[in-house]
Amino acid sequence: MTARIIDGKATAASLREDVAAAVARLKSEHGITPGLAVVLVGEDPASAVYVRNKGRQTVEAGMNSYEHKLDAGTSQDELLDLVAKLNADPAVNGILVQLPLPGHIDTSAVIATIDPAKDVDGFHVVNAGRLATGLPALVPCTPVGCVILARQVHSDLSGMEAVVVGRSNIVGKPVAQLLLNENCTVTIAHSRTRDLPEVCRRADLLIAAVGRPEMIRGDWIRPGATVIDVGINRIPTDEGKTRLVGDVAFDEAVEVAGAITPVPGGVGPMTIACLLRSTVEATRRQNGLEPV
Amino acid sequence: MTARIIDGKATAASLREDVAAAVARLKSEHGITPGLAVVLVGEDPASAVYVRNKGRQTVEAGMNSYEHKLDAGTSQDELLDLVAKLNADPAVNGILVQLPLPGHIDTSAVIATIDPAKDVDGFHVVNAGRLATGLPALVPCTPVGCVILARQVHSDLSGMEAVVVGRSNIVGKPVAQLLLNENCTVTIAHSRTRDLPEVCRRADLLIAAVGRPEMIRGDWIRPGATVIDVGINRIPTDEGKTRLVGDVAFDEAVEVAGAITPVPGGVGPMTIACLLRSTVEATRRQNGLEPV
Repeated sequence: MTARIIDGKATAASLREDVAAAVARLKSEHGITPGLAVVLVGEDPASAVYVRNKGRQTVEAGMNSYEHKLDAGTSQDELLDLVAKLNADPAVNGILVQLPLPGHIDTSAVIATIDPAKDVDGFHVVNAGRLATGLPALVPCTPVGCVILARQVHSDLSGMEAVVVGRSNIVGKPVAQLLLNENCTVTIAHSRTRDLPEVCRRADLLIAAVGRPEMIRGDWIRPGATVIDVGINRIPTDEGKTRLVGDVAFDEAVEVAGAITPVPGGVGPMTIACLLRSTVEATRRQNGLEPV
Repeated sequence: MTARIIDGKATAASLREDVAAAVARLKSEHGITPGLAVVLVGEDPASAVYVRNKGRQTVEAGMNSYEHKLDAGTSQDELLDLVAKLNADPAVNGILVQLPLPGHIDTSAVIATIDPAKDVDGFHVVNAGRLATGLPALVPCTPVGCVILARQVHSDLSGMEAVVVGRSNIVGKPVAQLLLNENCTVTIAHSRTRDLPEVCRRADLLIAAVGRPEMIRGDWIRPGATVIDVGINRIPTDEGKTRLVGDVAFDEAVEVAGAITPVPGGVGPMTIACLLRSTVEATRRQNGLEPV
């Protein structure tokens, strides 16, 4: 058996089209153009690429993009002042501060300063608490992308045995909350789990979010299961180059799973598309409009 | 085999002693007497009993108790005004609004008005979010009681397979978070779980919080497992009276489990003791003191 490959690139493209249509309706029906502000501190090359892609895709969806690139030596107070200005700016509906921040800045202080209504990354404790208690929330983008990809395979996730490997605040814990909201039976496994292969083998839906290259082997996967691989790990090749691999040993898993996301081209492309969707959601809520 | 009975009454008494000692130290070392305000709206007899017990135990622990008993016809605005006054009152370190509230009052609006630093019930989204993201938080009392009772049996819960049956905001979801913080592998099961008996049988540690009398049968329990029964259900007896039973069929479970909480006398007595502990914690944090 060879698994169905879940095409994150195509799904993300389709989601971006939906977002662009929603933006067009916001403009024509309400005269509102959503605006996303992205703040980058310092020169981290990966972050710079990511911020550039966000800006481009924001504009392509018909929204306004505001990029704030600050020197690596920017003080925490300067950054907090900028966030406060963006909170107060009615043209800005979403605020994203690109992580990681330089070491002299307290990341949690910065996140705590973002207006929860504009916190399109969903990292503010108010959004984490709203998600945890079943209230409407801005939810971290990668977990939302995982659920959308799972629903490419299963129109209804209700009653499925979901296993989430990894318990980060950015992926593992919020994706577990989302899957619980979808009525999955949810298990959260992690580095202290006693028999991780056996726990993984229970899963109808396996979410791998550990950040360890190819840790999850083919024989950890229940035949026919759906596998969503959040990992993006760069490893050296024999030819002295590097290549990207996920947290799942894809070549083995593809022979066992029913459906699987590739790396690259799986969860990765969904993250920015979900960010754009969150920006539209935030804009609608700020203007007292129902969610799309 | 007959299970060890986990004595919630004795554990709660011991916890209250610890709280009283912590209060005595707060007074002698810092001149601070913690104060807990409890607000009761209307005449619900069960709530009245519960509020009276809270007040008595608060005073017995050496703290100040402020009881606010309001008429069932109290408007939402009047209640919100009272909460705002208690937020501003430096003598009040903890605020508990007894639930359920009369139907004309929006419970979530009331909870959202409580200062998160004084929210000793742990129901505010800020506390739910802090718990969900691993920050210090005021945590709902019953889940804390469950974990303390589990630790009467296991000094370290790390690596245990925990199954939580029930996903309420008051018990199921926060207890799952706490068990994850204790490094358990945590499964959350619920009404949509496909094979609940089989999922329960995985558990080294089973937390039953569904509110359905004796739903969990003896043969759902792994031999030797620790069972914490949160349910308090009143059912009719053949003699036309009523009696209290848990969510677990105790007479069956006690033959299979390694340890089990009785109902009554298990989780129940822990709740107020944990509330007192939270009030001391809140007081220390408000005064810039380290947690005990």
